[in-house]
Amino acid sequence: MKQAEIRSDIAWATPEKVVIHGLDLCEDIVGKIDFGQMAFLQLFARLPDAREVRMFNAMMVILVEHGITPSSLATRMTYAGAPEAVQAAVAAGLLGLGSVFVGSLDNAARLLQESMPHPNAALDIDALARTIVDEYRARREILPGIGHPFHKPVDPRAPALFKVAQETGYDGPYIRLMTAIGKEAERKLDRALPVNVTGAMAAVASEMGIPWRICRGLAVAARAVGLVGHILEEMRQPLATALYLRTEHEATAHLVPRQEREEG
Amino acid sequence: MKQAEIRSDIAWATPEKVVIHGLDLCEDIVGKIDFGQMAFLQLFARLPDAREVRMFNAMMVILVEHGITPSSLATRMTYAGAPEAVQAAVAAGLLGLGSVFVGSLDNAARLLQESMPHPNAALDIDALARTIVDEYRARREILPGIGHPFHKPVDPRAPALFKVAQETGYDGPYIRLMTAIGKEAERKLDRALPVNVTGAMAAVASEMGIPWRICRGLAVAARAVGLVGHILEEMRQPLATALYLRTEHEATAHLVPRQEREEG
Amino acid sequence: MKQAEIRSDIAWATPEKVVIHGLDLCEDIVGKIDFGQMAFLQLFARLPDAREVRMFNAMMVILVEHGITPSSLATRMTYAGAPEAVQAAVAAGLLGLGSVFVGSLDNAARLLQESMPHPNAALDIDALARTIVDEYRARREILPGIGHPFHKPVDPRAPALFKVAQETGYDGPYIRLMTAIGKEAERKLDRALPVNVTGAMAAVASEMGIPWRICRGLAVAARAVGLVGHILEEMRQPLATALYLRTEHEATAHLVPRQEREEG
Amino acid sequence: MKQAEIRSDIAWATPEKVVIHGLDLCEDIVGKIDFGQMAFLQLFARLPDAREVRMFNAMMVILVEHGITPSSLATRMTYAGAPEAVQAAVAAGLLGLGSVFVGSLDNAARLLQESMPHPNAALDIDALARTIVDEYRARREILPGIGHPFHKPVDPRAPALFKVAQETGYDGPYIRLMTAIGKEAERKLDRALPVNVTGAMAAVASEMGIPWRICRGLAVAARAVGLVGHILEEMRQPLATALYLRTEHEATAHLVPRQEREEG
Repeated sequence: MKQAEIRSDIAWATPEKVVIHGLDLCEDIVGKIDFGQMAFLQLFARLPDAREVRMFNAMMVILVEHGITPSSLATRMTYAGAPEAVQAAVAAGLLGLGSVFVGSLDNAARLLQESMPHPNAALDIDALARTIVDEYRARREILPGIGHPFHKPVDPRAPALFKVAQETGYDGPYIRLMTAIGKEAERKLDRALPVNVTGAMAAVASEMGIPWRICRGLAVAARAVGLVGHILEEMRQPLATALYLRTEHEATAHLVPRQEREEG
Repeated sequence: MKQAEIRSDIAWATPEKVVIHGLDLCEDIVGKIDFGQMAFLQLFARLPDAREVRMFNAMMVILVEHGITPSSLATRMTYAGAPEAVQAAVAAGLLGLGSVFVGSLDNAARLLQESMPHPNAALDIDALARTIVDEYRARREILPGIGHPFHKPVDPRAPALFKVAQETGYDGPYIRLMTAIGKEAERKLDRALPVNVTGAMAAVASEMGIPWRICRGLAVAARAVGLVGHILEEMRQPLATALYLRTEHEATAHLVPRQEREEG
Repeated sequence: MKQAEIRSDIAWATPEKVVIHGLDLCEDIVGKIDFGQMAFLQLFARLPDAREVRMFNAMMVILVEHGITPSSLATRMTYAGAPEAVQAAVAAGLLGLGSVFVGSLDNAARLLQESMPHPNAALDIDALARTIVDEYRARREILPGIGHPFHKPVDPRAPALFKVAQETGYDGPYIRLMTAIGKEAERKLDRALPVNVTGAMAAVASEMGIPWRICRGLAVAARAVGLVGHILEEMRQPLATALYLRTEHEATAHLVPRQEREEG
Repeated sequence: MKQAEIRSDIAWATPEKVVIHGLDLCEDIVGKIDFGQMAFLQLFARLPDAREVRMFNAMMVILVEHGITPSSLATRMTYAGAPEAVQAAVAAGLLGLGSVFVGSLDNAARLLQESMPHPNAALDIDALARTIVDEYRARREILPGIGHPFHKPVDPRAPALFKVAQETGYDGPYIRLMTAIGKEAERKLDRALPVNVTGAMAAVASEMGIPWRICRGLAVAARAVGLVGHILEEMRQPLATALYLRTEHEATAHLVPRQEREEG
């Protein structure tokens, strides 16, 4: 059997040094670049310039913390059972970052990138938005990246992100397309459907050249940071045990014979 | 049943705004603070000053990428089976960050923090180091944070981190204790046992007031960033399938009848 | 805010007893029913009769062990890093049971169940199979449940499962449809494409009334048993550390300067 | 570099057959042995006899379903976010099976097996129990396997399991030692501390020759089956979204300004 090549270009080490994406960890990285630059380096295999890292940081910070969600509750429940395995508690919280909560980020980025693989000045972006909205309506599919059940009529995170894009020169065709999709959908469906946080992030990621397939990965990495904060709070001020006990009580109240419940 | 309080102080939201640790996400965070500051905010519930964030970033960047490890291979294997669930691939790689690879970070931080709960000028740090080394030798336990099987005689990441500590004013009693433990162990065991990367990180984390129980969490969060880089490389230049096929072939060669193998 | 109902009908307990799907754990389950019956009870909320449990067991045993796969390697890699967290090692191995390896089971079951929501004697199954194959060819999609890259021309697990189906009276319309799809695909594509193990399982699961959405769950539960076997072997006869070290060496050989490599 | 051996003895395959622990999957396993026998085969590398499989099944069925727990809630929360990744939902629920909930099983089995590595008729089991209880009291450690916060004064699952042990001839020295530890602890601490379910399982596992290090694996595999039942119920009768929304509301009530809350 001829062996397929097994090769990785990310990092290598000798006893005296560690090299990551061509940079010497001890000489060029530690004390020299920050966590945001390091995350950029890991994704793009090169260091960012000032405007790149500002835009990238804006995306990452928005993804870190979303409060009490199914994700942070899964982390806290896992920590309650296995406090010795902090890595498992973080992992449990990441596992639910799927189609329902983070999927719209991938979907919006995919929509933008597949609709406009090679942006150029000749493109009629409003016409493209009309076609996209019509196609989704014809297929009765939900358009990703617009509207929000709670942050309405406007998701304030979208304009905040677009403002940074403007300041850093990233206000290009993908942001225009995403915005046009929202406007066209509002017109056709006659209700407020502005770009939401995942739509804004998808547009910015597309402007930065981040492939849609890895967008969920950015969300996952940033959320890992956030979940550590939830573990720290759960250590000091636990809620998981109280929550599961009362949930068990309520969920089975119709099954337990009345008399035994009163005594229990 | 009286209900226990369920309370979280990390974040809250109204339709118009999101507040994290008291800061308005759209006004105070997006475009204003970077990913490293955000990670610090999530852990300490306040923003860092310049020297704090420089020290914190130095720790985080060191933890991001460790090359082809059991962790990155678990991520790549999982991605090969479930490319649609990037969150699961990251989670799989985090799950092995346990006692063997990251545990020495917790253990070293615990040793330092429990040996010196209230550092003060009157403490004889060298005497304390001698007692610690003697106790570990008496119990035939391995001292965490010193020596390295590959990076020897010196783990270059430790002096790199301590240099940043010196520049930022974090060269305090925990770093002195960790260093003294290494020297005392070298003296008693008569071989090179300088502080390694986990010992250095444990000392710096202790200087920053990070409780030992959450140190593994920092490693997990930083590594999540690194694993996204491995997924990106696996997308473009996969190795998981070739590796599992050849491993299966080799591992079962003694079981498969010779004739069938040759035909297979 | 009106509170939505939170309710679970699976199990309840008093200090004196535990009740699962209406059965008393200590009186009716322990020592009375076996692991296969218990798994059936957990899925169907009732005990199986003899033919049901024989068919169900045949599906479950086929899913337990698949040798050295990305899944078992992820488990072994995780165990190498966190031997104290056996649950994390099992979980890591389950995470890759996604679209590539187990997805064809869901997809085949979905295809069968959506093509034939209400099987009846009047249906022309061969005509239905022709339509299905034509539609997939028109969309250039891969038909799930037929053909196998290694087990060819015949996947021996499919006839083994169908034999049990025949003996237990489960050889109904879904098995006929799956078989007809394979035959039609062979005719149209002019190569061997018999029903494979996931096609056979999808057909049997459909005969048993198991919704396609939970089919992957059966595979996941059975594989959890198999992965414990891999952990046990890894405890006694480890391969993970040797495998990662040699993979790291090979994958980075092109990066490390020749001289340092020779010394290393 | 000399390559370390990479070898697995569990399974191998040719295009025509699959062999697991020396048995032909299609000839000897499918339709011939049940899920409990298969699980035994995977752990012991041989088929069980009738009494072995009855005892083994009794342990496994007890571990499958524990109702609304942190584990099943983590599974349901993950399913709510990633319904397309059932494997991730099961994995999330397994991750919390750590020191708090399942750890006492390992700990009790370890205590029994290390206290009595070679049981023989000459051993004074009551004296051994006294020594063990005294040592734990002296170290102020909690004895694993006795007492239960909810199932008191008696955990009904322990006598149920011991009854099967008696019927199958497994009522040997480890069950006597576990029982003696409970009695001695009750005498010394003057309160009801009979053997609980994990103590009973640890004793039975020890009688069966199952190493303590893998006991948690049995619990994890059995619980995977149970968690699939929770996913199935969550599909039909969801509770995760309602639970997280109301938890978020309650947990942040003290942070959200009164006026905004009323409008929200």
